[in-house]
Amino acid sequence: MKRALNFNAGPAALPEAVLAKAEKEMMNYQGSGMGVMELSHRSKEFEEINERTENLLRGLLTIPDEYEVLFLQGGASLQFSMVPMNLLEKGSTASYVLTGTWSEKALKEAQKMGNAAIAASSKTANYRFIPSTSEIDIPAESSYLHITTNNTIYGTQWHSFPEGLPIPLVADMSSDILSRPLNLSSYGLIYAGAQKNLGPSGVTVVIIHKDLLKRSKPGLPSMLNYEVHAASRSLYNTPPTLSIYFLMLVLEWAEALGGVKQLELLNKQKAALLYDAIDRSDGFYTGHAEEKSRSLMNITFTLDQDDLTSAFLHEAEESGFIGLAGHRSVGGCRASIYNAVPLENVEKLADFMNHFRSRN
Amino acid sequence: MKRALNFNAGPAALPEAVLAKAEKEMMNYQGSGMGVMELSHRSKEFEEINERTENLLRGLLTIPDEYEVLFLQGGASLQFSMVPMNLLEKGSTASYVLTGTWSEKALKEAQKMGNAAIAASSKTANYRFIPSTSEIDIPAESSYLHITTNNTIYGTQWHSFPEGLPIPLVADMSSDILSRPLNLSSYGLIYAGAQKNLGPSGVTVVIIHKDLLKRSKPGLPSMLNYEVHAASRSLYNTPPTLSIYFLMLVLEWAEALGGVKQLELLNKQKAALLYDAIDRSDGFYTGHAEEKSRSLMNITFTLDQDDLTSAFLHEAEESGFIGLAGHRSVGGCRASIYNAVPLENVEKLADFMNHFRSRN
Ligand SMILES: Cc1ncc(COP(=O)(O)O)c(C=O)c1O
Ligand SMILES: Cc1ncc(COP(=O)(O)O)c(C=O)c1O
Ligand SMILES: [Mg+2]
Ligand SMILES: [Mg+2]
Ligand SMILES: [Mg+2]
Ligand SMILES: [Mg+2]
Repeated sequence: MKRALNFNAGPAALPEAVLAKAEKEMMNYQGSGMGVMELSHRSKEFEEINERTENLLRGLLTIPDEYEVLFLQGGASLQFSMVPMNLLEKGSTASYVLTGTWSEKALKEAQKMGNAAIAASSKTANYRFIPSTSEIDIPAESSYLHITTNNTIYGTQWHSFPEGLPIPLVADMSSDILSRPLNLSSYGLIYAGAQKNLGPSGVTVVIIHKDLLKRSKPGLPSMLNYEVHAASRSLYNTPPTLSIYFLMLVLEWAEALGGVKQLELLNKQKAALLYDAIDRSDGFYTGHAEEKSRSLMNITFTLDQDDLTSAFLHEAEESGFIGLAGHRSVGGCRASIYNAVPLENVEKLADFMNHFRSRN
Repeated sequence: MKRALNFNAGPAALPEAVLAKAEKEMMNYQGSGMGVMELSHRSKEFEEINERTENLLRGLLTIPDEYEVLFLQGGASLQFSMVPMNLLEKGSTASYVLTGTWSEKALKEAQKMGNAAIAASSKTANYRFIPSTSEIDIPAESSYLHITTNNTIYGTQWHSFPEGLPIPLVADMSSDILSRPLNLSSYGLIYAGAQKNLGPSGVTVVIIHKDLLKRSKPGLPSMLNYEVHAASRSLYNTPPTLSIYFLMLVLEWAEALGGVKQLELLNKQKAALLYDAIDRSDGFYTGHAEEKSRSLMNITFTLDQDDLTSAFLHEAEESGFIGLAGHRSVGGCRASIYNAVPLENVEKLADFMNHFRSRN
């Protein structure tokens, strides 16, 4: 069976071993005579999946006991609203660092809920870099500071983080969670849609410091209240059982591979192949991100003429590469090389880039 | 491969043919070299799945063009909040008919959003029946009337419906959508979590009259705004692609079987087997629901002593029947016999009930 050369930005490639296991268990999960999605979410079997998934994530990301791990629905986009609904205190400000489209959207949703301010931004530079931590200017009386650790569309990534903040740091890690080790104690809350590094779409991981749960007001809709979900171990209502099962399989795969340190090594190796192809192209390819802010997950670049970009994308598609067009909003090219994208596929893409350049 | 005798209340049994197809396509959806969950939600392939799923549902339920079909996340529980957030107008009342636990929860969430009132209730009768339509007393200035067409926990179901209301009728059909034909033009909005009659958990179907979209205020969080989802054909953010794919497979199965009329015949046949076992048991089994309000989906009953109920559930489990314990909140026994539960399995259960009675 020939697997595609999948560089989709999300939903994205999953490990072949994960699909093979899901295929094998599809009609009969662990001898139950049922598929995973036919199990009651209150059954022993699913309770075990739920717990095992949480424990695997705790192990991989070294999540301390003071944090709750929640599996929610609605994608990262619903978190854009749930974060201010739960954490923005009365008379206080929600502060955002703008580093791309997703942080802009997060800010916009926060503004609907109350006061929200920009603490730093690289928008005028077309989001080519991540502002340095010293540039971040947090308004007095802020409830939290929100950052987007990896900017899926612009291809930039935070490599050093605000430390010792007087307020909780909240991070959208949708496109780089599990790609590298994490010092969780710097954060108050982390969220990530699963569909890039963690599994299929349909489940969102939220990791929240227990102290912050006190901010969730009982008047909030139950489904939008972190406290409610924490109190019921993400079983307040029927969870997306199938997506959580796939998340578990991906985490098992990540653990077997050696964990986040090993994944980071591989991710650096993969990204280097593509950034080298760009940097050694004598300007044939131009990377969008400034070097110091380059993402290891989304490699964004253009060719020096629009029709050459089109030709590149066209030939790439004909050669079997999937998902290399840049996001609708910015154009150009983007290769998303999340954890599950095999090194060999990235090598093939680097070769293709080099050959295309030599021919044009 | 031995399939379980699955009577789970939801997530519940899926058609074997659906699982077999998903198994076959797991690693390679239609020759793409990718699993469905690895496809971009903006890809041609997924756009087709999205559209096909909507069209199948439109065909099966005869949904007129004046209605939008949305595929959302968060389960029916999130709809408890989204309905009043979007439809409850300023200075007006949200009216609810209480017929069980789920309508109580829906009311409770509406009360957080504004004025909400009880238009009828059978609570004092332990929810044994559905109030007759003539008993429904809608407060003046109501924004809508909310009903729960099938009460999963108590095992009751609406069999005649309010007609010619001056306000939109809103229905939670989580546990009986697609079990029988539907006169959609009586409704303003219908919602249903997929995990009983439609597919796996993780996707919620909302069918809404286009006129009602005008009530959604732009100040609402985007993810909680029906208008936003309608305008982007349920692709405002990353949809739960895998759950939608399974929904499509279930709808294909339902269509091949002959549609909702055929399903209704089968459902009546299946329910009759169990209600007969109850009615002909000389009081050994007692049905919870009054006869006129009996559900075709969830058959609820008790045995005349608590320890006999326990013995029944224990022996049933030993004989391979899954999910027959009543909901945690009410106890007793419940057999959920949604569309995908095969007639043979219901026959086996009826036989088991008869034999158990003859032995005790
Ligand atoms: C960084 C980031 N945040 C948020 C989102 C939105 O996620 P979702 O579609 O799960 O709502 C995305 C989607 O690509 C993303 O890359
Ligand atoms: C009638 C009804 N409404 C609502 C719900 C809640 O659904 P969900 O778990 O998808 O939020 C259920 C769940 O069993 C139900 O049966
Ligand atoms: Mg927990
Ligand atoms: Mg971005
Ligand atoms: Mg539509
Ligand atoms: Mg009920």
